[in-house]
Amino acid sequence: MNDRIRKLVDQLCELQVDAFFVTDEVNVRYLTGFTGDSSSLVVSADAQTMLSDGRYKEQLDEECPGLAVEIKSPSEKPIDFCRKVLGGCGVQRIAIEADQMSVARLGELKQHLPAVQWVETSGVIGQHRMIKDAEEIEILRSAVRINERALESILAKLGPDWTEQEIAYELEATIRRLGATGFSFDPIIGAGPGGAKPHYRSGLEVIGDHPALLVDWGTNLGGYASDLTRSFHFGNPPSRFLSAYEAVLESQLAAIEAIRPGVVASEVDAAARNVLKKAGLDEYFVHGLGHGVGLQIHEMPRLSAVSDDVLAEGMVITVEPGVYFEGEFGIRIEDDVLVTESGHEVLSQMPKGLDDCRLIL
Amino acid sequence: MNDRIRKLVDQLCELQVDAFFVTDEVNVRYLTGFTGDSSSLVVSADAQTMLSDGRYKEQLDEECPGLAVEIKSPSEKPIDFCRKVLGGCGVQRIAIEADQMSVARLGELKQHLPAVQWVETSGVIGQHRMIKDAEEIEILRSAVRINERALESILAKLGPDWTEQEIAYELEATIRRLGATGFSFDPIIGAGPGGAKPHYRSGLEVIGDHPALLVDWGTNLGGYASDLTRSFHFGNPPSRFLSAYEAVLESQLAAIEAIRPGVVASEVDAAARNVLKKAGLDEYFVHGLGHGVGLQIHEMPRLSAVSDDVLAEGMVITVEPGVYFEGEFGIRIEDDVLVTESGHEVLSQMPKGLDDCRLIL
Repeated sequence: MNDRIRKLVDQLCELQVDAFFVTDEVNVRYLTGFTGDSSSLVVSADAQTMLSDGRYKEQLDEECPGLAVEIKSPSEKPIDFCRKVLGGCGVQRIAIEADQMSVARLGELKQHLPAVQWVETSGVIGQHRMIKDAEEIEILRSAVRINERALESILAKLGPDWTEQEIAYELEATIRRLGATGFSFDPIIGAGPGGAKPHYRSGLEVIGDHPALLVDWGTNLGGYASDLTRSFHFGNPPSRFLSAYEAVLESQLAAIEAIRPGVVASEVDAAARNVLKKAGLDEYFVHGLGHGVGLQIHEMPRLSAVSDDVLAEGMVITVEPGVYFEGEFGIRIEDDVLVTESGHEVLSQMPKGLDDCRLIL
Repeated sequence: MNDRIRKLVDQLCELQVDAFFVTDEVNVRYLTGFTGDSSSLVVSADAQTMLSDGRYKEQLDEECPGLAVEIKSPSEKPIDFCRKVLGGCGVQRIAIEADQMSVARLGELKQHLPAVQWVETSGVIGQHRMIKDAEEIEILRSAVRINERALESILAKLGPDWTEQEIAYELEATIRRLGATGFSFDPIIGAGPGGAKPHYRSGLEVIGDHPALLVDWGTNLGGYASDLTRSFHFGNPPSRFLSAYEAVLESQLAAIEAIRPGVVASEVDAAARNVLKKAGLDEYFVHGLGHGVGLQIHEMPRLSAVSDDVLAEGMVITVEPGVYFEGEFGIRIEDDVLVTESGHEVLSQMPKGLDDCRLIL
């Protein structure tokens, strides 16, 4: 039993269950190292068993040596397979991941395993995943570094005739040359008005046709995600751009300054939002401040005006205030920040000062 | 109201509900054309309203002109926003997508909107999506064509020193040059033993080091997925490879032959499985025969030994029998097939005969 599974086993008593049924695939990966899909894990103090199918038999042997594995046959219905394995565990009370499992699946389980008491839990493994161990922090650090190096190398060769998509494709190729898997999410490469849509992707706009450019990009390294944003202006920015940029930067720095163990996430959001309010720009900051990053690009904790998550040492979170002027441009500055014992460490080092937003094409 | 929403509205009476709460993001896209995420749709006979947040305001105006949109403010909790919008609809009975909505979310809705009766449905919009309209079939046809052209151009320049990953990256770049978005899923490029894992991805194996190569790849075009597999041998295959290839091909052709409206999916699976049984290879066919393709790479119907889905005109399905020899190689042949009024049409045309599996490096 590895440390992560041990931690879950240690919680079974407190949850008043005999076993935990892990059905969220990312949680299954976190606990076992298995990188495939369509598989779930039953964890009790006595046994841990993976439920999978024939497509993954060999991969499970390799990735999870020593783990008990049950393989569904092609002629078996998933629910019958599940009943056989779960029913065979001889357990009475089973915790389920209610924030992931569908209403229909729980209904089916209740129908086919009527003797089991199903205990609805939320975020149990998510709470474990929030706190990164030393190895995870090192991977995240490397994912950030590759991400920065990739964009820097693209910026050095950017020309006015490049399209947003061209930047995206070259960026991904560079990330891969640097040894990572690729993007951790579809990047947002927004020239001019595209950057004013907080969740734009990238299109065929030619960047030289617009004065502003927003790049929100991330690297997937060993399953872990980095997530950064930088905003640029070609040539000398007009005061309207510059004053907004300055406000967003000040807002981000204020939020980062507020990060330390024990702080409630909504307070960090407020630190950023207050700066933009003073600048008269808070109505343009239409989203939350940030989120945890790890095996998923968006995971716990949430940093927003309504989040009561409490920061703790070992969390890695994004801090990404932004302002968006419809039809014109958007500015967002995003870094990945580790919560440390004494406060915080900004993992990303790519310059973001007032001078750094100016690009020459 | 467009035709797709109209079809759902027409079903409200039969479902005995006043409104349908669409929370599956792919279903939201199918009904409205909205390509973002984190948004849901309430559909009643009188009104259709999208629930979204500030990140998507502008994109919704562009992609869904005329659709009523409610935007959550950053200071509002998602459940409070949901209560406000759903509660304001004045409806008593609301259908939810029980096969998608989490147990926790339904619990929260029940708690915050106690006067509403929540009616659990499964696969309602999935059933609509199974039957492709003429426009969707054209997109899928193009996604298949681009997919084939991309692999053919890679095969023409393949050398013995290429790695699996190199093939993947070049393939994706070619798909993009041909005008599509990229892959519809992480491709499986398996040299030798890698191909024996039905859900392998691609690694750093050099293809010239192994006699066999399996390629399972797909194109995402306008959100729609194609999904094909071809299996190859470098130089003249030994009889062990050739006889297995022949059996898989015969198995696939038998399954395709069985495809027509009204046939139960398990019968099509059986047509393939019986051929492999006669060849003594059925124990190596460890997965189902295929699945629907469309906005998702895996969607309804399912083709397996335990599927009672009934084929109907307008479905587009994969047919992909395979055999896997652990530590050696795998063989799978997969095509995308349209169910037509009189039978079927194989959308993919890439050669797969006994001579076509032989590659020269």
